[in-house]
Amino acid sequence: MTTEKHIKISNSDRAHVLVQAMPYIKKLSGETIVVKYGGNAMIDDALKEAVMNDIILMQLVSIQVVLVHGGGPEINAMLKKIGKESKFIGGMRYTDAETVEIVQQVLAGKVNKDLVQLLEDKGGKAIGLCGLDGSLLKADKLPAAEDLGFVGEIRDVNAKILEDSLSAGYIPVVSTVAAGYHGEVYNINADVAAARIAASLKARKLILMTDVVGLLRDKDDESSLIPVVTVSDVPKLKREGVISGGMIPKIDCCVEAVRRGVERAHIIDGRTPHSILVELFTDEGIGTMFY
Amino acid sequence: MTTEKHIKISNSDRAHVLVQAMPYIKKLSGETIVVKYGGNAMIDDALKEAVMNDIILMQLVSIQVVLVHGGGPEINAMLKKIGKESKFIGGMRYTDAETVEIVQQVLAGKVNKDLVQLLEDKGGKAIGLCGLDGSLLKADKLPAAEDLGFVGEIRDVNAKILEDSLSAGYIPVVSTVAAGYHGEVYNINADVAAARIAASLKARKLILMTDVVGLLRDKDDESSLIPVVTVSDVPKLKREGVISGGMIPKIDCCVEAVRRGVERAHIIDGRTPHSILVELFTDEGIGTMFY
Amino acid sequence: MTTEKHIKISNSDRAHVLVQAMPYIKKLSGETIVVKYGGNAMIDDALKEAVMNDIILMQLVSIQVVLVHGGGPEINAMLKKIGKESKFIGGMRYTDAETVEIVQQVLAGKVNKDLVQLLEDKGGKAIGLCGLDGSLLKADKLPAAEDLGFVGEIRDVNAKILEDSLSAGYIPVVSTVAAGYHGEVYNINADVAAARIAASLKARKLILMTDVVGLLRDKDDESSLIPVVTVSDVPKLKREGVISGGMIPKIDCCVEAVRRGVERAHIIDGRTPHSILVELFTDEGIGTMFY
Amino acid sequence: MTTEKHIKISNSDRAHVLVQAMPYIKKLSGETIVVKYGGNAMIDDALKEAVMNDIILMQLVSIQVVLVHGGGPEINAMLKKIGKESKFIGGMRYTDAETVEIVQQVLAGKVNKDLVQLLEDKGGKAIGLCGLDGSLLKADKLPAAEDLGFVGEIRDVNAKILEDSLSAGYIPVVSTVAAGYHGEVYNINADVAAARIAASLKARKLILMTDVVGLLRDKDDESSLIPVVTVSDVPKLKREGVISGGMIPKIDCCVEAVRRGVERAHIIDGRTPHSILVELFTDEGIGTMFY
Amino acid sequence: MTTEKHIKISNSDRAHVLVQAMPYIKKLSGETIVVKYGGNAMIDDALKEAVMNDIILMQLVSIQVVLVHGGGPEINAMLKKIGKESKFIGGMRYTDAETVEIVQQVLAGKVNKDLVQLLEDKGGKAIGLCGLDGSLLKADKLPAAEDLGFVGEIRDVNAKILEDSLSAGYIPVVSTVAAGYHGEVYNINADVAAARIAASLKARKLILMTDVVGLLRDKDDESSLIPVVTVSDVPKLKREGVISGGMIPKIDCCVEAVRRGVERAHIIDGRTPHSILVELFTDEGIGTMFY
Amino acid sequence: MTTEKHIKISNSDRAHVLVQAMPYIKKLSGETIVVKYGGNAMIDDALKEAVMNDIILMQLVSIQVVLVHGGGPEINAMLKKIGKESKFIGGMRYTDAETVEIVQQVLAGKVNKDLVQLLEDKGGKAIGLCGLDGSLLKADKLPAAEDLGFVGEIRDVNAKILEDSLSAGYIPVVSTVAAGYHGEVYNINADVAAARIAASLKARKLILMTDVVGLLRDKDDESSLIPVVTVSDVPKLKREGVISGGMIPKIDCCVEAVRRGVERAHIIDGRTPHSILVELFTDEGIGTMFY
Repeated sequence: MTTEKHIKISNSDRAHVLVQAMPYIKKLSGETIVVKYGGNAMIDDALKEAVMNDIILMQLVSIQVVLVHGGGPEINAMLKKIGKESKFIGGMRYTDAETVEIVQQVLAGKVNKDLVQLLEDKGGKAIGLCGLDGSLLKADKLPAAEDLGFVGEIRDVNAKILEDSLSAGYIPVVSTVAAGYHGEVYNINADVAAARIAASLKARKLILMTDVVGLLRDKDDESSLIPVVTVSDVPKLKREGVISGGMIPKIDCCVEAVRRGVERAHIIDGRTPHSILVELFTDEGIGTMFY
Repeated sequence: MTTEKHIKISNSDRAHVLVQAMPYIKKLSGETIVVKYGGNAMIDDALKEAVMNDIILMQLVSIQVVLVHGGGPEINAMLKKIGKESKFIGGMRYTDAETVEIVQQVLAGKVNKDLVQLLEDKGGKAIGLCGLDGSLLKADKLPAAEDLGFVGEIRDVNAKILEDSLSAGYIPVVSTVAAGYHGEVYNINADVAAARIAASLKARKLILMTDVVGLLRDKDDESSLIPVVTVSDVPKLKREGVISGGMIPKIDCCVEAVRRGVERAHIIDGRTPHSILVELFTDEGIGTMFY
Repeated sequence: MTTEKHIKISNSDRAHVLVQAMPYIKKLSGETIVVKYGGNAMIDDALKEAVMNDIILMQLVSIQVVLVHGGGPEINAMLKKIGKESKFIGGMRYTDAETVEIVQQVLAGKVNKDLVQLLEDKGGKAIGLCGLDGSLLKADKLPAAEDLGFVGEIRDVNAKILEDSLSAGYIPVVSTVAAGYHGEVYNINADVAAARIAASLKARKLILMTDVVGLLRDKDDESSLIPVVTVSDVPKLKREGVISGGMIPKIDCCVEAVRRGVERAHIIDGRTPHSILVELFTDEGIGTMFY
Repeated sequence: MTTEKHIKISNSDRAHVLVQAMPYIKKLSGETIVVKYGGNAMIDDALKEAVMNDIILMQLVSIQVVLVHGGGPEINAMLKKIGKESKFIGGMRYTDAETVEIVQQVLAGKVNKDLVQLLEDKGGKAIGLCGLDGSLLKADKLPAAEDLGFVGEIRDVNAKILEDSLSAGYIPVVSTVAAGYHGEVYNINADVAAARIAASLKARKLILMTDVVGLLRDKDDESSLIPVVTVSDVPKLKREGVISGGMIPKIDCCVEAVRRGVERAHIIDGRTPHSILVELFTDEGIGTMFY
Repeated sequence: MTTEKHIKISNSDRAHVLVQAMPYIKKLSGETIVVKYGGNAMIDDALKEAVMNDIILMQLVSIQVVLVHGGGPEINAMLKKIGKESKFIGGMRYTDAETVEIVQQVLAGKVNKDLVQLLEDKGGKAIGLCGLDGSLLKADKLPAAEDLGFVGEIRDVNAKILEDSLSAGYIPVVSTVAAGYHGEVYNINADVAAARIAASLKARKLILMTDVVGLLRDKDDESSLIPVVTVSDVPKLKREGVISGGMIPKIDCCVEAVRRGVERAHIIDGRTPHSILVELFTDEGIGTMFY
Repeated sequence: MTTEKHIKISNSDRAHVLVQAMPYIKKLSGETIVVKYGGNAMIDDALKEAVMNDIILMQLVSIQVVLVHGGGPEINAMLKKIGKESKFIGGMRYTDAETVEIVQQVLAGKVNKDLVQLLEDKGGKAIGLCGLDGSLLKADKLPAAEDLGFVGEIRDVNAKILEDSLSAGYIPVVSTVAAGYHGEVYNINADVAAARIAASLKARKLILMTDVVGLLRDKDDESSLIPVVTVSDVPKLKREGVISGGMIPKIDCCVEAVRRGVERAHIIDGRTPHSILVELFTDEGIGTMFY
């Protein structure tokens, strides 16, 4: 079922590896973990397969896993196909009425269901949902200096449909479009949605997969990784410029999640194969943890 | 929440109507009914709203309702947008690799989730699924004289995800794309899928919404409607030419459903507002019933 | 099963009526409603049948309905049969030992079980209870200026037997005789008992069926109906004489019920067929509501 | 709570008695036993109290007990009160329309609810039902040489309401009037009803309380009691005249019950205090057992 | 199944005894009672059988009973067999590493499982546990003036395994060895363990079976028994010397249990056959009760 | 918690190992596996710890695991301590009355509870049972040419107590002494008991841990291992002398288990660390499988 290379390790060593993962499995068994999936890990096929395997393994050891995904490149490709230019304002996609329709159908119809099929084919049980199902995500227009069109700000998370899906044994795969209060649909930032969903489920962990190693003290030196950050240190790190640029919104999501009751939030490197498993089931972990 | 015109009927008459619906409600309460939704009822906004109201009313009186939908016009529109011609062979869409992607994203991402939002906004509880979720529909390539591309024939229906959704109180809304056995996706005829899903759920009724009054003895005379047909009469009616043209595949679906254990299958006129309620909750019923 | 006249309304209008009832059904589904049944609606056969239909329809749309009934005329008839005069003091029946036996057997054995049979024959599921079953109503002698014999004042309501009956799917039909603490039995005013039972079940609504239109500002002018009264306005309305005579104890029951946690109490006109349905499932409602 | 005389037995002997009852309790715990209560045991107050204690003790040791009662003397008294003569044809009460109303109200309203109150006051949990509740007993007119009026023959037993009551922890007390198929009510022989109810519940035992010691070989010699009879011996015993007179219908009930799946049927002497307990919890038993 | 002498009591008196036990059974049905079993009642075969019968009878009348046992004589016998002297310091066994192994195997392997077999053979359902199962009892070394070796002091009671056993219908039989926090095992005083287990289960009663009549005001006069003691009176009774010697630790257990929420604690005379039943099911009770 | 050496494998390789175990975990999740634990794996501390880890890992991935153990060396040591010689007849221990007491207390009191403590200390949930608990194993004296004393032959397996323990989340650890029908206790061969327990639980697998590599075609050449044997080949292999000596009874247990419905029985080498995990979670497996 898997196409991953069969590595050369003695059976005895295999057994040791399993046994050494045991305390971590034990600790997380029965817990809820929300994974925000995006970036290179969604583009590279080998990485994608590795992530799907990680997710199914989590399900097998009784972790309640929710997979929240993005899909920028697929949206861009579709927009291009219909001859529409992708337009970004301050890093956010300007989303007119036609665009939000494309966003919805590409995310909820294509990216989402393809992931579901991949998980099912690998032996997982998965269900593809978006913010419209069971009114999971309700949003208003995001207030912004410059008009962003149908970009939304979450007002309410009704996690009941996720709880129902989890308790029936499914991995919910979630596209982050949200229902407005007047029949309209909004495009929602996937990191933000994952954070709010994690909070609403009182998840043990939120894991954001990114294309960076984690938070670096010196952004040009990967060996300067800061492995653990307390939420209260974040303002100081921003002032010092350690947290800057694209890391700011991601780390704000982590802070928000922790503030709303998620035990730990992690920024991990999605470019490393099986980075989720390494984070969950080894001593060293990976990336930066916020608590 | 509803925009339907408030009709002028005295409260006393209203009460009578409710009371007279009682025996029908009683008979159907707790039963499963699969509705195939398509045609004009999906295009006309007033009809669409009436159908959504019918579906929610069914849920309110404890009917387990599954909504299977088509979406030809929306697919055509999207194909046109990307500059691709819709091509049909013997009434069936030729579906190349690019087309099946569009079919999937338009049906499962747009049409499906829009219906879910509509039901939710009217106070229903709905969940949008397709054949990939929980491996609901598994298919192979449909054998055909002329190659149809990714048009599939259902091999297996895993209705567990529908049962889970129903028992958690949701109206499952189903797009009829199916998972192949090698990661590919197939386009599936929605009538056929509805019939197979109804059979798999051992539904009490299958209701196909069409743009005709029902089976007519004389196709040019609506007063020649045949209200009831036994499955064993179908071959004779075909030989006599009463069942012909576009009615053949629809009636074959009804026969198939009844043969596989669905108690009754109905072909009703989706152009009549609230035709589902009229069928379910009045003496006369509507359209043609197969049993 | 029903003998009500089949009214002439088009199927389309029928469907509209059902759809328009939908938001009301939705709001009340799963809620508990206590109906005090009495007066003309219990004597006139057509009205009686209409009420039974209303009750069963409520059960069908998942309302938890409890039917509390009186039975003065039947008691009088039986007393007359054994040659005993009915004696009233200040509007209340003087109830000697022989009378309380007659009251118990007529209410709990005849009126109650006849209603049960009627509901069952119309397709409902009903169970006939009185205050002695499961010690539902415990009472002491009602303190009064003039001795009333075995007329009781409720001390304790043990609604467990009603909850058990409702959760097993029955409509509890309740006769209002109560158990004393020394083996004796008391006659209890049915309005009072209904109010106390509604409070004990934390019912959403208490509905008192009466032989008046509701609370009238001018008791000789039915067009002066006061549709809504807040509980805090009642003392003023009494001082003004708007609430007077036989309305006082009925409205006191409504106030008592609301004070003990029932959301709304209604005085409706039992002489209007299907007054319960009109109250529950139309915009206008009927009678006077207290909250 | 009990007024029974406190007998002089040492505590050690008391403990021995309890321990010796143990194997019988163990054997019957969780089983269903239907007791037909009637005769002297219903008239004599000390006997009545003893029976009620027996019933509650059965409930305490987890026996599922159903109490079916008669009430001839109370019916006669009421008929007399209204100046109506009791008329019997071949041992059966001629039951005109007025009589069946009296039968219903005296049994279901007075005798039944009084027993419920007695059980409740002694700490039991009881619920008073008749054949109309939940359509427990459905009957047609009993065919007979001479017209008996509203005397019925059971067509259907819907024991669901008894099972619901038992599983909610109540002792169902049952009056044997039955619902006809056209709104009428029938008077039903209580022994027959008890036998049919026992069969429908697949009871372990049916116990008929009578005013005789049991089946005697010589009806004038109580020492000639036949303690055990197999159902297949009954025809022979009838031919020999050992079973004759009033014993015939009672023993026919026992035979009927056993034939329909009740494990054992007992005719016991209701004039002996605590005859039920003696039958259930001692080696010797009492009366005559049919199997 | 029982070998107890069949006492000569009339069936009528037997029934009376059962009925008179009824209010006590009713009061205790569903409650949890912890019995500490030891002393002569464990050595004398007739007494042992009587206790087992009492325990099974308790189970039969739906009491949740936990049996905590000692086993000093058996331990001594085994130590003697391996040529090891039993050594006591201040009334407590000095328990070296070899001794604690013997204690564990004799208690948990022999005494415990023999009791389980006895209960099973008499028709009970029993399960043999010790403090190691499910980490029921966790202990540290008991701090003492003179080193006592592996004698422990309870730090934590995890009663989950007892609750699981009780809810699955078993009588848990408990040996009082406890798990240390570093893989070692401790010997625990059985009275103390019973008191802590009773508290942890929020038991209704703790019953300590002893070889004395109860607390005597004059220890040489059995007629000076003090039947009831409030926990607050204990210090005064100690000062007066009424509570002295071997009674001190036993009564301290009772006080501790009551302080931690057990409703009543009893010291009863295990030398009297069926002393538990006499205590539970008669007016007089037996021994001394603390509350 | 574990003292096993931390092997040097990259985190990436660790993740691969976990992922590669996934299909095996998936296949066995929810299944019941009975492990017979004995031989060197019980004596060597490192092996013992590895086995305990394997068992807990099985529990973590939702395998229902039952651990049946032997304990010959511990029994011998205890017999020696009390100066009693171990006597064997045809490979089976002659078990006089004194010996069976020692067997019971050493197995059920010491070996069993020590394993329970070990599992609990490593984070498992375990419960120590023997054949007496819940009458799990009932036996008669084993018929044999030469008298073996209290060596038993299993007559009945009441696996209810194992099912109760498993469903409450415990790993049942089972000592193989059995209850006779007259209060006596029998010593039971642990392989045989494990096979019968596996059959009674309809286990997916029975795993016998031994001190051999598996079934060898040439008993002096470990490379001649026969990895898979069908039950029907066993007689031929016996005739050929491939199955001989001590392997005969072990393989007979495997055959017996498979015949009674266990899907697969395995003879594995307990001297290899983590041999259970290697068997369950790798392609190659280990030892010899019977089906």
